[in-house]
Parts: sequence; C-alpha cells; structure tokens
Amino acid sequence: MRFTFRFVLTVTSLVTIVSVTMAQISKRPREYGIKFGVLPTGPLNAITDVPGVRVGQITVNQGQNIRTGVTAIIPHGGNLFQQKSPAAIYIGNGFGKLTGYSQVEELGTLETPIILTNTLSVPIAADAVIDYTLAQKGNEQVRSVNTVVGETNDGSLNDIRGRHVTKQHVLDAIQQAKTGLVEEGNVGAGTGTVCFGYKGGIGTASRKLPASLGGYTVGALVQTNFGGVLQIAGVPIGVALGKYSFKEKLDGSCMMVVLTDAPLDARNLKRLAKRAFMGLAQTGGIASNGSGDYVIAVSTAYRIPHETASSFDELKLLRNDNISPLFMAAIEATEEAIINSLFAAKTSTGDQGHTVEQLPIEKVVDLLKKAGQAR
Amino acid sequence: MRFTFRFVLTVTSLVTIVSVTMAQISKRPREYGIKFGVLPTGPLNAITDVPGVRVGQITVNQGQNIRTGVTAIIPHGGNLFQQKSPAAIYIGNGFGKLTGYSQVEELGTLETPIILTNTLSVPIAADAVIDYTLAQKGNEQVRSVNTVVGETNDGSLNDIRGRHVTKQHVLDAIQQAKTGLVEEGNVGAGTGTVCFGYKGGIGTASRKLPASLGGYTVGALVQTNFGGVLQIAGVPIGVALGKYSFKEKLDGSCMMVVLTDAPLDARNLKRLAKRAFMGLAQTGGIASNGSGDYVIAVSTAYRIPHETASSFDELKLLRNDNISPLFMAAIEATEEAIINSLFAAKTSTGDQGHTVEQLPIEKVVDLLKKAGQAR
Amino acid sequence: MRFTFRFVLTVTSLVTIVSVTMAQISKRPREYGIKFGVLPTGPLNAITDVPGVRVGQITVNQGQNIRTGVTAIIPHGGNLFQQKSPAAIYIGNGFGKLTGYSQVEELGTLETPIILTNTLSVPIAADAVIDYTLAQKGNEQVRSVNTVVGETNDGSLNDIRGRHVTKQHVLDAIQQAKTGLVEEGNVGAGTGTVCFGYKGGIGTASRKLPASLGGYTVGALVQTNFGGVLQIAGVPIGVALGKYSFKEKLDGSCMMVVLTDAPLDARNLKRLAKRAFMGLAQTGGIASNGSGDYVIAVSTAYRIPHETASSFDELKLLRNDNISPLFMAAIEATEEAIINSLFAAKTSTGDQGHTVEQLPIEKVVDLLKKAGQAR
Amino acid sequence: MRFTFRFVLTVTSLVTIVSVTMAQISKRPREYGIKFGVLPTGPLNAITDVPGVRVGQITVNQGQNIRTGVTAIIPHGGNLFQQKSPAAIYIGNGFGKLTGYSQVEELGTLETPIILTNTLSVPIAADAVIDYTLAQKGNEQVRSVNTVVGETNDGSLNDIRGRHVTKQHVLDAIQQAKTGLVEEGNVGAGTGTVCFGYKGGIGTASRKLPASLGGYTVGALVQTNFGGVLQIAGVPIGVALGKYSFKEKLDGSCMMVVLTDAPLDARNLKRLAKRAFMGLAQTGGIASNGSGDYVIAVSTAYRIPHETASSFDELKLLRNDNISPLFMAAIEATEEAIINSLFAAKTSTGDQGHTVEQLPIEKVVDLLKKAGQAR
Repeated sequence: MRFTFRFVLTVTSLVTIVSVTMAQISKRPREYGIKFGVLPTGPLNAITDVPGVRVGQITVNQGQNIRTGVTAIIPHGGNLFQQKSPAAIYIGNGFGKLTGYSQVEELGTLETPIILTNTLSVPIAADAVIDYTLAQKGNEQVRSVNTVVGETNDGSLNDIRGRHVTKQHVLDAIQQAKTGLVEEGNVGAGTGTVCFGYKGGIGTASRKLPASLGGYTVGALVQTNFGGVLQIAGVPIGVALGKYSFKEKLDGSCMMVVLTDAPLDARNLKRLAKRAFMGLAQTGGIASNGSGDYVIAVSTAYRIPHETASSFDELKLLRNDNISPLFMAAIEATEEAIINSLFAAKTSTGDQGHTVEQLPIEKVVDLLKKAGQAR
Repeated sequence: MRFTFRFVLTVTSLVTIVSVTMAQISKRPREYGIKFGVLPTGPLNAITDVPGVRVGQITVNQGQNIRTGVTAIIPHGGNLFQQKSPAAIYIGNGFGKLTGYSQVEELGTLETPIILTNTLSVPIAADAVIDYTLAQKGNEQVRSVNTVVGETNDGSLNDIRGRHVTKQHVLDAIQQAKTGLVEEGNVGAGTGTVCFGYKGGIGTASRKLPASLGGYTVGALVQTNFGGVLQIAGVPIGVALGKYSFKEKLDGSCMMVVLTDAPLDARNLKRLAKRAFMGLAQTGGIASNGSGDYVIAVSTAYRIPHETASSFDELKLLRNDNISPLFMAAIEATEEAIINSLFAAKTSTGDQGHTVEQLPIEKVVDLLKKAGQAR
Repeated sequence: MRFTFRFVLTVTSLVTIVSVTMAQISKRPREYGIKFGVLPTGPLNAITDVPGVRVGQITVNQGQNIRTGVTAIIPHGGNLFQQKSPAAIYIGNGFGKLTGYSQVEELGTLETPIILTNTLSVPIAADAVIDYTLAQKGNEQVRSVNTVVGETNDGSLNDIRGRHVTKQHVLDAIQQAKTGLVEEGNVGAGTGTVCFGYKGGIGTASRKLPASLGGYTVGALVQTNFGGVLQIAGVPIGVALGKYSFKEKLDGSCMMVVLTDAPLDARNLKRLAKRAFMGLAQTGGIASNGSGDYVIAVSTAYRIPHETASSFDELKLLRNDNISPLFMAAIEATEEAIINSLFAAKTSTGDQGHTVEQLPIEKVVDLLKKAGQAR
Repeated sequence: MRFTFRFVLTVTSLVTIVSVTMAQISKRPREYGIKFGVLPTGPLNAITDVPGVRVGQITVNQGQNIRTGVTAIIPHGGNLFQQKSPAAIYIGNGFGKLTGYSQVEELGTLETPIILTNTLSVPIAADAVIDYTLAQKGNEQVRSVNTVVGETNDGSLNDIRGRHVTKQHVLDAIQQAKTGLVEEGNVGAGTGTVCFGYKGGIGTASRKLPASLGGYTVGALVQTNFGGVLQIAGVPIGVALGKYSFKEKLDGSCMMVVLTDAPLDARNLKRLAKRAFMGLAQTGGIASNGSGDYVIAVSTAYRIPHETASSFDELKLLRNDNISPLFMAAIEATEEAIINSLFAAKTSTGDQGHTVEQLPIEKVVDLLKKAGQAR
C-alpha cells in the first residue's frame, strides 16, 4: 500500500530516493496489531486525513555528514496569508527556536506554511517562507510576514554547524506538498533525528471521531528527537531494552503539529495543542531540560480573511462542552505519530561516522506480543 | 506496616475511623509487583519522604449524603508566612477554583499550608487559612495572606451544595498534619472523588534520585477525580474493563502537589510542576474540558524570609542542566500517586444513594499479570 | 445633578449616608475642565454607560476603626451563570488575591457578579457569591461556581484583620446593584483605600466611540489603592505637591473592571484589559512590587449559554483590525476613573487614629490651570 | 558634547555619516529643561550607563528607497554564549516577529547579542547572529544558538520587501558595538521608523538610583515606530498639533531593551520589562492591534556559565521588596528614551518618495514651556 507514492516522490525529488527505498520495507505499528487508545484512525492514519492538508518533505542526505531536511505542513490550498487559519501554539518546554509564537498567540491566526527543519537552519527557512509569501500572487502589498518555523537538533548525525539547508529546499518542500500519504522516518526534517536513543524521524497519525461526537478528524505530524524511557502502547520497551541511562543525556526535542477540521478558535486550539503534549508523555517522553517541545494546532474549519469589507468575523465554533473527545483524539494521534516515526526510521550513519540504530522492531514486537499489545 | 498509624488517627479524629478501617485491608500497587517508571521510591513512597513535609487529613463522612473532607500539605515546620517556601503553580486545565495562583506566579513563594477540599468549600477553607495565619505567633502585623486552596468536585457522592466543610475541619487538618505515613483513598479531600469511573481519592508516592544525580527526593500527593481511559503501568485497564464511554461525561479534575528538597527556584519549580501533569497523562487522563488540573510545586531546600535586614536573597540553585532527573521523578511519582489513590479507594455510597464502585483490584491485578506488569 | 441618587441610596443602606453626604459636594475633574485623552465620554461618564451594566456598593463605615466595603459589578440582568459573559483577566502585577482567574482564562467566560472588597475578606465574599448563585432560580443543579472576587488592601484605615465584611454585605451589594449613576470616592470597596498618598476609592469613567468606529462604549470602574508619582492629565502633581518619597512604601494595588458592548471574545478582551493597565501607567502608577493590579474585562455584546441544544456558539466578533480605538478608549477611561476616584474621595480617619488626607483639590486645580489643563 | 563621537563613527562606518551630521544639531529634551519623572539619569543618560553594555549601529541609507539598519545591544564583553546573562522578555502586544522568546522564557538567560532591525530582515539577522556565535573562539562545539532579534516595520520609508539588510550589516553592528555615547534618531534599526506620525528612530536614556536604594543603573534603548496620541512629559502634544486621527492607521511597533546592573533573576527581569511597557504608555502609545511591542530585559550583575563543574548556580539576588525603585527607573528611562528618539530624528524621504516629517521641535518646546515643562 505504501508503494504507491514512491514513484511520485522520485519524480519530484531525487534526494528522497534513499529514504523512500527504506520506507517500502517498513510496516507501521498498526500492521502488527499495536493499538494506541480507543478512537478510530482516519483512512490514511495521517495528518492528511484532515481534508485539504498537504505535507511536503525534502530530505537532505548528502555525503558522509549531511543528514537533515525540511518538512512543510500546509493547512489549506488557498493563499494562506490572505486567508489565515485559526491557530495556536503550546510550549511544552521552551528550549527551542520556533519562530512566530507571539503573533500566533496575539492574533490567533497562522498566515504561512508551517516549516520544520534543524535548529540552525531556522533563519534560512524563515527567510524562504518570506520569499514564498512575498512572491505569491495577491501578496504584492504584503510587508509583514509571520513565519512559523520549528526545529529539533539533528546535530548528532548531521553536520548542523554547516547549515546545509537552503532556501530552495524549503521552497521545494512547500511546492511539493500534497495530500495523501505522508512518508515517515528518515525523511524531511526527521532525516537526522534521534528518539529514545534510536533513530527517530517524521511520524504521523490521525483520529476520526464518530459522527455522534461531530465526526471531526484530528491529525498529528511529529518530528521526534527526544529522550526518556520508551513506552509503546504502554509497554515499557525502554526498560526491557535497557535503553536509557541517567548518565546519558536525556535531552532532545519534539515538534508536534496538530490539524483538525473541527471549528475551534485559538483558545480551544491551544487547549488541543496541550493535549498533544500529553501524547508525548504517553510515549515515555519527559520533556527534559534541553528539549524544545512545541505543538502548533490549526483548524481548517474556517478562515480569517486578511482584508475584508466587514468589521466582523462571523464564526460558528464548537462549544467548550464538546471538545473533550477532540482532546482524546489529539493525545492518541500524537502518541501514535511518535511511535510511527520510530517504526519507520532506519539506522543511519552520519557526521563523524556516528551511527544511530533503528528501533529493533522484531524484539519490540515480541515484547509487545508478550504484553498482549501486538499480535 | 500500614497498621501503625491507625491508632494515632483514631485518637485525633473520629471522623476518619471508617476510612482508616478500610485502609488496613488495602495493598498498594507495589505490593503486587507493579512498577511505575525506573526510579527508586523513597522509604514511605509518599510525599512525606521529603524531609519535614507534613500532611493532615480530615474526612467528613456523615450521614447518607456527606462524603467530603480536607487535606493539608505543609512544606515545613516553621512559620510559613515568615519563612516562605519557593513555589510555582502549573495550570494543566484551568476549569477549577484554586486560590492564590497569581501571587505565587508573581513572587515565586508560598506563605501558607496548601489545602485541598471540594469545589464549593474553597472559600471557607481559604478563610480558615487566614484565621490560621493571623493567629500564628509572630504574625501579629500580617494584613495580607495568600492562601493556596485547591479543589475537585465531589458532587456525585457528596451533597456539595450543602457545603459541609467547616473552618474547624480545615484548622484540624492543619493542626494534625504530621510526617510519616499518609493515608490514601477515601480520606480527606479524596473522600468523595471519582476517578476513571471508579472511586478515586488521595494518593501519594515519591522518588529518590541516586546520589550521583543529587540524591534529591520528589514527592507527589494527588486528589483524583478525573476521567479518560485508565492505564496502569501502561496496561490499558480501562479498555479491558470496558470502563469508558464517549457518551459518559469525561469531566473531572485532579489536584497535584509536588514537593522536593532539590534547591529549585520558582522558574524551575514551574517546569517540575508541568511534568507532574505528564504523569497524569501516563495514567490515561485526558484533562477534559471540565477538568481542573493544577500542580503546585514547592521546594523545601531553602526559605525566603518575609522580612530580613538584608536586601538580598542568597541562593544556591540547581542548574538547569541538572534538572531532568527531577522531571522524570515528578512524572513517575505523580503517575504512581494516582494509581495508589485508586488501589486504596473503597466503594462508597453517598448523595442521593449514588454508589461509586472501587477499582476491581483482583481483575486489575490479573490483567497486569497477563501483561507482565504484576506478579 | 449628582444629588438625585442620594435619596435612593439612603433608603437602601444606612451605612452609606456619610459618604453620600460627602459626595454631594464633590465636583468631578471634567467639571473643572480637565480632560483625559481625546475620545468623548458616555452620558454618565461611568461604567454604567455600557447598557445593562449595574453597580452595587455597600460601605462598611463603622466606629473608629472599620473603613471598608463591597462593590459589585454585574454585566447583565439575566442569570449570569446560565448566560455567561465573555470575559478575560489581565494580571498587571500579581501580588493580590483575586479569585477565579484560571477558569476565566481557560473558558473565556464570567458566570457570576464581579465583587471587589478588601484583601482578607475575599473568601467571605466568594462564599457569598456562591450563596447567591446556588440560590438563584434556575441554578438548582449547579454544583460548581467560579467566583471573581478582587481586592485591595485597606489595612491602613481599616481594621482589616477584623474582617468586618459579611456575606450579607456582599449579597446586599449584588441586590442593590443598579444602572445609572455610580457613587465614587469613599464608598464600597473604596471606603478605606489610599492612592498616591491621598485618600483613594472607587472611580468610574467611560468612552463612547464615534459611529464611524462602531459606536461602542467602554466603561471602567476602579478601586484605587496604589502608589507612584501622581500625574493628572499628564501634569506632574505628585512632584509639585512633594507627595512621594523613596523611603515611603510605594506599595498598593488597583483593581480595574472594564465593560464594553463591543463584540469581543476572550482573546481580544484580554488585550483590552491590558490597555486598562496602560491607563494606570498614565496616572503615574508604577505597579510596585506589592501592588495587586488586575483588570477584568467583560463584553455585554453576547452571552454564552451554560447549556444549550446546539453544539456550537455562533458569534459575530469584531475583527482584530478594528480593535485599536477600543484600546484607546480603555486607556482613557481607566486613567480618568482613577483620577475621578481621587477627586471624589474625602479625608478619612480610621484604624488606630490613622488619617489619610484627600487630594487638595484647589491646589491641584491651580496647578492644572497653570499647565493649561484646567480652566 | 555630542560632537565627540562623530569622529569615531565616521571612521568605523561610512554609512552613518548622514545621520551623524544631523545628530550634531540636535539637542536632547533635557537640554530644553524637559524632565521625565523624578529619578536622576546616569552620566550619559543612555543604556550604556550600565557598565559594560555596548551598542553598535549600522545605518542602511542607500539611494531613494532604502532607509533601514541594524542596532546591536551587547550586555557584556565576554563570550555571551559561554557566559549567559539572566534575561526575560515581556510581550506588550505580540504582533511582531521577535525570535528567541520561548528559550529566554524557559531558561531565563540570553546567550547572544540583541539585534534590532526591520520586520522582513529578522531571519537574515538571526542567521548572522548564528554566524557570529559559531565563529567565536570557544564556541567550536556549539550546535544550538538562541538568537534574540526584534524588529519594527519601517515599510513606509524603506523598501522593506527588498530586504536590504545583509548578514554583514549585522556582523558589523556587533563588531562596532561600543560603550559610551549612543547615537539616536535616524540611525541603525531606527533609520526608517515613524512614531506618532513623526519621524521616529533609536532613543536611549537611563536612571541611576540613589545609593540608599542600591545605586543601581537602569538603561533603556528603544526603536520607536508606533502610534497613539503623543504626550511629552505629560503634555498633550499630539492633541495640540492635531497629529492623530481615528481614520489614520494607528498601528506600529516599539522594541524596548532594558539593561540593569541590579542583580535580578528572570522572574524579576520580566517584571522590570513590564514596567518599560508602562513607560511607553506614558508617551501616549496605545499598543494598537498591529503593534509589536516587546521588552527585553537583561541583568549584567552576574552570568550563568554555559558549562561548569558545579551543579549549582550561586546567586545573590535583590529581594522582591527592594525592586520597586527599579520599576520606576524602567518606566522613566523608557519614556524618556522614546521622546529622545523623536527629538533626535530628522525628516526623511524614502520609498516611493514618501516623506515623514520630524517632530517640530520649536513648536513642541513652546507648548512644553507654556505647560511649565520646558524652559
């Protein structure tokens, strides 16, 4: 099933070939019978289950020491600046370099694609997003752009000080963004990341509420690069594998992006974002001192025009009382997206010959079987 | 072992007899071989493992319809107003009535005992704390008292509208506060609470870091009254027991109190508090819309005098870089404290004949055994 | 003009006689030609210019040492709990005891009257608000009430440790609340307060935007009890009168309540609230360490039902782009309300024979004339 | 007196010649006898009165349409990354693009120079700061840099979409940073800004507390680009000059940087930062919807080493009780810095032939004289 997109990607971007080749041999946790929570997934179990949401990824995997990339998440197909999306950002642990926080917080809207990349490439990515926005038809008068660029530090596999992400990489990620399947693992902004001591990367998942609860979809996409004591579907895998240590650095970061078609304003999107952070907790993440853990939550249910003849925004918002199932969906989707990233990621050798092993899937599945959590 | 404190409690407070009698027949999860995380507990596995911390509880269990009470947590044995404790409060979900937030946030200190009770008894409890503080020797000139009173809503078992907690109950809880064992379950502020659809209550746990990580103790005490899909040591108990529903109200609250002897200031205590909320996530809590989820974190490592000849506070604070093990300790202790509350709580019938069943311990332990999480 | 309400007040409450008698001889700053900002006032230049807003005040002025009281502000005439008002709270300086902050922040609504009183009477006032709410017709099932009770410390004129405010005082303030003129000065929660070293108290003012800017009204009511270097309409009165000192305590607090009929949600109400704090700055206030400076902002433009058949709130909200004139209105109204409180307040002798002088109006007006700011 | 620095600047940077030439004919408000507040200034009445603080500015004033630049503020002369400064950021109104907020908030430290520039040049400036930091001796292992780059939008005089600030401009600003006099007006990041409808720019001021209050210095530097109704020393100049309008856009931003040698931690620096925002209010600023108003506050009293053998930071911090005079100093210095920027700024013609007039100093001084606020 996951073969279908390989062709498309190789056409659009040569640099992604390697990871695509690897992706084809991965099974996602659900294919092993592993379950996360109680809510059903969307059809793709991906952030792109939220209608209209597109993801574009550029993997920068060059030579011996460059293992990095860019992931772009785009809430809708219109002109994002002219038709802003309601949005909020929750800061789980602020040891990170995310741009755009204060304006999203103040105004409650997102006006650009969301970009994920490595820590030291945030400025170049933000500059590219400005390029993109200024050049877009209809934005000829725009003189202020609030980029939202997040990052984690891929400096153990990647020559991060070399800053190998270019503006073109970012523009390509935006341009290639598409609906449908989302590649996971060593791809895009997840190319060089490390999670729970294993190779991390990009992961995604979704939940679809039953019609009785509104039928809304919540999708999550994560860039996993953090530590703690790994749990999968509650099973203490990190302990079983002996893969944690108080002498090791626990640091690392996780960028989480949550999209939904539920009609929420910024206040309730911030609450939703906070639940994604609870999903991280479910995997055994501890949001260590050095972790930059951020959640960006966006609703696709309506748009706020940049300019309009009216003095008013007319909104039909889900009431506070009806939001709890969405909270559960955000927790579950984020948890699963993180584990998906680990199952998709492949052993990688990078900067200074440093190798990070992938999760030992067989062992892990055995442990899960013993615990009754896989078949 | 847990028999020893029964005598003391029955002497000091008749109203606690019932729950004490019940307490003697409970085993704590650890006695079934259930483990939470990787760090060792303190000797009592209780918040009182933090040296000097005292807990006092008054259970108000009267007639057919009164199931409520008061729990007091006192960081040190001195005059709290004159010798303030560094403190912070993290708001997981703000649908609650906690007093004292803004002053703790602004000044970084706690100047009174922490009181937990039911939602509608917060004002009377705050008034009692003012009584206590004004009357204390050395406080003759005090004209401003910042109480910190938290609550959850025990209105399904308790005639909460009757507001049966009195000032005397609160003063008694403070006066009876002691070091040593802490009663769990249907006691104090946990008398009438409901958690994951079962009888909740008060729970406590602790972690002690190895000497190489500073040897600090982190203790948690919780008042559990919330919903979600119960997990115990990662095992999806709520799913197995079929005890959750999208039609049921998921609402409810959790008050969490975290004490530590690590020398942290308010900024790092707030970060520590946030990790306790991650511990709640580990149990399957979702911080639903109606949940008032607050964490109060306090350090006993030093005190800030109310008045002093010096213009300066001289502090020796743990560096940011060294705090991650404390984060893990707060997550683990809070998770375990929540589960401890469920294991200790007993079936209770209260207001309007409403009965809330206790956790079916045998079944649960069986499920945990099958998952390899109990022996 | 200000005589008309004297009769009404003496009928309803004997304790207010003294201050009413004084009120009749006060002129408001505008009557001296003093101007604050550029926007026109509403007809009464009071918070009650916002349609439907009512204010009730009980002055507790007893014997030699009791100088305190209660001020209630009620956004609309319906059942506040069942028909909540959109609201937000901004914390200028959090050294205060305001109740209700976190729930207003989380849910964006107010569900009770706003009460102002003295620091140590906050709990009794909150308890009274619960009484009021539980007893109200239609609230028979209510088991959770989020009170919003603010305070300043009137402990220099008032025997604050005696806690002389009763539940009945609070219930009376709510019951007597009315539209129309609002008494200022030594009244209600302002009975015993001190501002810039002079007698402070309650003050109110309003602004009405021109129709081209929406025609909205913004009203402010303040309880002034803070320090700094007094400026009136920009004129450095505090310097001219030599009424400030670095050796004196600068501490003190200011409660500010801002009402508007502009259709704002909690996010923009919080922004509006922040501008009221800028109005405090305009008077020379410095928000000193010990000052509890809070702004509660509420919109009367629509209501959020506690329960409803619909899953949605349908809102027509003023766009971000149109809010700046409201910001200016909030700054101006708050500045003027503070100065109004000083002009209305009268010399008072209270606890331990301590006397606080009123602002020397004649001297002040002379200084303002010289600066071209009064006629 | 202000002639002395002309020589130095022309040597180091040709692009600043124009503004320097203009600077020599400006008098600062104090030279007209205008006073702001009650506290004495430091010797230079500049942010550089805080010992060790350096400022570097590059003015990018090219052709007909480029009116922009860079201002760098550097807290101390050591390696900022290795020896971090305690810091905090207060967001007055978040419609801006400041980088670095969340990490400063989380960790309480600043690890780079502070850079101010125009809105769309923030990414290039941040990238330059990373260049600077990575290249600095001792930082060979650094793989994470938290830049703090603020901005206002100079798009009315400057071809902002052209993004004419280069990395080299930023590196030059850092390199040329020096103690001593600070140029004001159309210089550095203030080259193209507009304030209260007049030409704005860079301004600076300072306060020095008397020895009895600790003898600390507080310095402010501002980049003024905002609207409202101008007040100078409280005198309503904007009204007198008819220079405001409800039809005009009120939008605009103000970056404020506050340095002090008082030993404050991040919590109290954030409180100090908030008072600078009150200084903005004193000038008649309203923090309109579109305004990005940020304050960055930094203490030079001590440093937090990036790495150290100790697990602890040993700090001697000013107590909360002693901070109010610093609050007053921050308000006064910020107010004066803003007005200083207006007095120093010169009429400028820029993009698309748009001209912004300077403040009509003579008229203004006349108005101030009439109000008794200038001689």
